[in-house]
Amino acid sequence: MADAVLFEFLHTEMVAELWTPDPDPGSGGQKTCPSVLESVGFRVGQALGERLPRNTPAFREELDVLKFLCKDLWVAVFQKQMDGLRTNHQGTYVLQDNSFPLLVPMASGLQYLEEAPKFLAFTCGLLCGALHTLGFQSLVTASVAALPACKFQVVIQKP
Amino acid sequence: MADAVLFEFLHTEMVAELWTPDPDPGSGGQKTCPSVLESVGFRVGQALGERLPRNTPAFREELDVLKFLCKDLWVAVFQKQMDGLRTNHQGTYVLQDNSFPLLVPMASGLQYLEEAPKFLAFTCGLLCGALHTLGFQSLVTASVAALPACKFQVVIQKP
Repeated sequence: MADAVLFEFLHTEMVAELWTPDPDPGSGGQKTCPSVLESVGFRVGQALGERLPRNTPAFREELDVLKFLCKDLWVAVFQKQMDGLRTNHQGTYVLQDNSFPLLVPMASGLQYLEEAPKFLAFTCGLLCGALHTLGFQSLVTASVAALPACKFQVVIQKP
Repeated sequence: MADAVLFEFLHTEMVAELWTPDPDPGSGGQKTCPSVLESVGFRVGQALGERLPRNTPAFREELDVLKFLCKDLWVAVFQKQMDGLRTNHQGTYVLQDNSFPLLVPMASGLQYLEEAPKFLAFTCGLLCGALHTLGFQSLVTASVAALPACKFQVVIQKP
């Protein structure tokens, strides 16, 4: 299936051309602006968010939207579902992918962990952009403890 | 089908981030170096060229390889076949797409023609990269007479 590898090849090249390390964190250690890759992911996520839900029943709750991301969005982009979704029921969600496709090509090993963020920025933006289209402001970050597993933390911003 | 729109959205964002107008042509009016988008396309084409032909009989002739690009590569990337292929039997090929998917979203009209090259650079590189993997050095250029139709001219470089 060439479609899937096409996306992966394109993503690899985007990382090569567009990755820039985080600018210095502002006061309080918070990132002050999203990276270029995150912005690209955000706009792709916004656009996908408009296309995907056409055949999906209207979302009633925040949790329904998160389930939609874990299932429909993930399948559309990565041809697999997210492996786990946990929440504290206060607007924070942890989405777990035990074998995140964009990390699979990397060699495993602790020494490669510091390279992982460049392969996660686009997808953080993608989730944030899709949520934006679906009516939720959010902060999305990713963390990797052991390649190629990955956790995305989504914090919904209350208006 | 989200895969196809995913590629189109990504391509749009790559154009937005990476398009740079041609540098000044060198003496003789020839382009001196490929654009960033062309280079990205080249590397994606190289990688696709390695993956696609697995189930394809060995190529015997140049023309077989061009037919492969028009059929298999085009379907893999654009979900359609090229509409026409002509050759002078001396290493020059003209590939005609009457409705090139990356130009379809553009409004038609003569006044938009000058915007077209930014949506063709990636694909020129893609063809050139796939040909490179399959053993052929080439020069690939594109031209548009009426949106969204497009012609790609491939000139095989003899060793």
